[in-house]
Amino acid sequence: MDPKNKENLSSLLQDVNELLGKNKIVEDLVDKQEMPKQKLIKNLVQKQNLSALGKLLNSLHPADVAFILESLPLNDRLIVWDLVRADRDGEILIEVSDSVRQTLIADMDNTELLAAAEQLDTDEIADIAADLPENVLQDLLESLDANNRKRLESALSYPEDQVGALMDFDIVTIRDDISLEVALRYLRKIKKLPELTDKLFVVSRSQKILGVLPLKRIVVNEPDLIVKEVMSKDAVLFKADDEAAEAAKAFERYDLVTAPVVNDEDQLVGRITVDAVMDYIREESDSNQLSMVGLREDEDIFSSIWKSVQNRWAWLAINLITALIASRVIGAFEGSIEKIVALAALMPIVAGVGGNSGNQTTTMIVRAIALGQVSLNHLRKLLFKEIGVAVLNGLLWGSVLGVIAFYLYGNTGLSIVMTTAMTLNLILAAIMGVMIPLAMSKFGRDPAVGSSVLITAMTDSGGFFIFLGLATLVLV
Amino acid sequence: MDPKNKENLSSLLQDVNELLGKNKIVEDLVDKQEMPKQKLIKNLVQKQNLSALGKLLNSLHPADVAFILESLPLNDRLIVWDLVRADRDGEILIEVSDSVRQTLIADMDNTELLAAAEQLDTDEIADIAADLPENVLQDLLESLDANNRKRLESALSYPEDQVGALMDFDIVTIRDDISLEVALRYLRKIKKLPELTDKLFVVSRSQKILGVLPLKRIVVNEPDLIVKEVMSKDAVLFKADDEAAEAAKAFERYDLVTAPVVNDEDQLVGRITVDAVMDYIREESDSNQLSMVGLREDEDIFSSIWKSVQNRWAWLAINLITALIASRVIGAFEGSIEKIVALAALMPIVAGVGGNSGNQTTTMIVRAIALGQVSLNHLRKLLFKEIGVAVLNGLLWGSVLGVIAFYLYGNTGLSIVMTTAMTLNLILAAIMGVMIPLAMSKFGRDPAVGSSVLITAMTDSGGFFIFLGLATLVLV
Repeated sequence: MDPKNKENLSSLLQDVNELLGKNKIVEDLVDKQEMPKQKLIKNLVQKQNLSALGKLLNSLHPADVAFILESLPLNDRLIVWDLVRADRDGEILIEVSDSVRQTLIADMDNTELLAAAEQLDTDEIADIAADLPENVLQDLLESLDANNRKRLESALSYPEDQVGALMDFDIVTIRDDISLEVALRYLRKIKKLPELTDKLFVVSRSQKILGVLPLKRIVVNEPDLIVKEVMSKDAVLFKADDEAAEAAKAFERYDLVTAPVVNDEDQLVGRITVDAVMDYIREESDSNQLSMVGLREDEDIFSSIWKSVQNRWAWLAINLITALIASRVIGAFEGSIEKIVALAALMPIVAGVGGNSGNQTTTMIVRAIALGQVSLNHLRKLLFKEIGVAVLNGLLWGSVLGVIAFYLYGNTGLSIVMTTAMTLNLILAAIMGVMIPLAMSKFGRDPAVGSSVLITAMTDSGGFFIFLGLATLVLV
Repeated sequence: MDPKNKENLSSLLQDVNELLGKNKIVEDLVDKQEMPKQKLIKNLVQKQNLSALGKLLNSLHPADVAFILESLPLNDRLIVWDLVRADRDGEILIEVSDSVRQTLIADMDNTELLAAAEQLDTDEIADIAADLPENVLQDLLESLDANNRKRLESALSYPEDQVGALMDFDIVTIRDDISLEVALRYLRKIKKLPELTDKLFVVSRSQKILGVLPLKRIVVNEPDLIVKEVMSKDAVLFKADDEAAEAAKAFERYDLVTAPVVNDEDQLVGRITVDAVMDYIREESDSNQLSMVGLREDEDIFSSIWKSVQNRWAWLAINLITALIASRVIGAFEGSIEKIVALAALMPIVAGVGGNSGNQTTTMIVRAIALGQVSLNHLRKLLFKEIGVAVLNGLLWGSVLGVIAFYLYGNTGLSIVMTTAMTLNLILAAIMGVMIPLAMSKFGRDPAVGSSVLITAMTDSGGFFIFLGLATLVLV
């Protein structure tokens, strides 16, 4: 076996860029001179490179082509997309990210799209359906046989966060009253099992699930045993409307490769595979990270300026409002600042450190909520711990700042105000850092989205209020 | 099959808390009265509950017991830990998070630890070795046979981010010149295949890897075919010192369940499984999220205050320094603020919105770097786009703020300064948001760690400087 078959993606990307880039160098040369002979050379080199690139692309795994498409600016991306053989369009469309898929689909006409989609399994069509034009989807539905149409409609009916949306229909079923020998003969007739098949599903005549028969057990047991004696009856199974996140956790905990999905009558309707689960986990963790800074979706890094602005504006608007509120808090103390201008220089420190500390607490709590490990039961314990951390940090760092403030401004009162305000703002940050995500989750909202803005808003306005208020009371 | 076998973790956790909690209610009652009879009742109820809890625990999957341990405050956690049967200690220790494992190990003496570790496979011992006391590890090494000792030592020699650290040794090998019939007879003799076995590894007499034989192919092909004719020769394989992140990407792209690991002589040394890869992905994404806010490691939410302070102090210290620098920038303009006190109220808006916008850019770039999709090649394109977004946002939101500032302070000059400073600070945020993570990755550092602090430091100090500087030039 050749270890080189494991493609090194970054060197691959470099090759592609070179094949695309060489064109550009020639193009640049020609554009500057515009002589007919150079133009001819340009065309030749270009053709050669593009045909080499086309060959390279068609030898690659669809996931790798998807990676290349995602890594190229729009112009180059469309050149590469046109070089991909039409019969591979479908399998590549399901691999690229949503935002990049939209740019590719925008480049295809309806006939091409229909042809591409027709190469796909129903569960795959369901994955890209949201990006297809309405009339293509209609044509597609009409082109399917009754069974597949029903499957597609059912797959489309599940929201993204339910098991039904992750499900595929590549299931191989057998009865429980045959011998392994007969099962093996049946499998040899099928010739090829679906990707990731690690077990067969044992069902009754009415499609009710009775158990699962891992391939492992088929190969280690004597062929004269009956399926019923060999199958596992306590396998993990899911309902199509179970939460996808729960299913993902079960896959991680129990080290599953595939699991059956049943309806309310316990009839087998599909399966989930570990690769669908892995994609789900990856997407969840990505969208978590993106939503933490207010990016609404996975942004194509080469998207247009206008698209980016749309993707990001909401968060900036919210940020502007919270900043305005903080600004009005400061405005209320303008009289004090006029008298002691040092307050203006010191106040952002109190607010900033509070915001940071609050975000540390929130991140930890949000994570524990996502893992299902924390509830309102432990509120008192968590608050006690976080407030303890805040007091310790406040006294420590607040004193450091107090000393620095004294060194800068020589005002003992100001130093004491600084230390006290710092400690109080850290306590505020701790309380909010625990309460906000717990409250959001209690009211059924995703605590990962927006917790951080809320915390920062509290610690900014709160920090300014505490510091300037104390200073006004004590010093002015 | 019974769908209830899929444990609902949150209801499970509630049961455990109840069994633990009931004790407390009785305890509280008795503590208040201290009568001998009540004491007797208390002991009885307690014993009953604890024995029920013990039974419950021992019926659970080790991953579920781990979940419960992680979800309980330290006292309750140790009560539960003592209830777990000693012969299950090992399998549970490898499932809990690092920080929780430390609390459990601290509760065990060396004999217990040694007994627990001896139940584990060598690759599992390697996973928890870092948390074991030095002398226990020594005793453990001595208790192993030569082959396993060599394996453990080799597993311990790989850093966390290499394939060798994810590898296990549960491999089943066969020769390439036997028939499937003979292979099946061999498997029936083995009786039980390791977890997650989806393929056999085909090796030469000198342990060189020749190919892989998926179980799927064994069951669909005629038994008189020879392994060589049926096996796959272009399977994905890894070297023990390959990067774990690359292996994880390959598992996701090619939908693998297991893959062989070879040494430099192409000899089979172990395998990686999809569950090790999934754990790795989960841990990476967690530690990414934690390091974004400066948490050094996965914190046990019920850890002591002192431990938390240690886990979080470094980031707060850095934050303090950057806040001090920003404060000194403001200090330099105290004269201007004394004259126009409105500047003090408006300046945090410019800094804050800049910080937010910069963090959006950075998050996107960091993600693209992690996916290997962006390089210095595209610097110009990325900068162009981000600066475009910044100018658009700056003019838009800057104007909104300008109008609000005019409404509040009735000063046209101040409004113009506000709009201009906002736009300039957003441009600064865009440039830094692109450059900082790219530069960090160029110098071989993980751009996810610290990018956000650096950006915020730049946009804070930069924002104050731009706004106050402009105001001083134009207005004072």
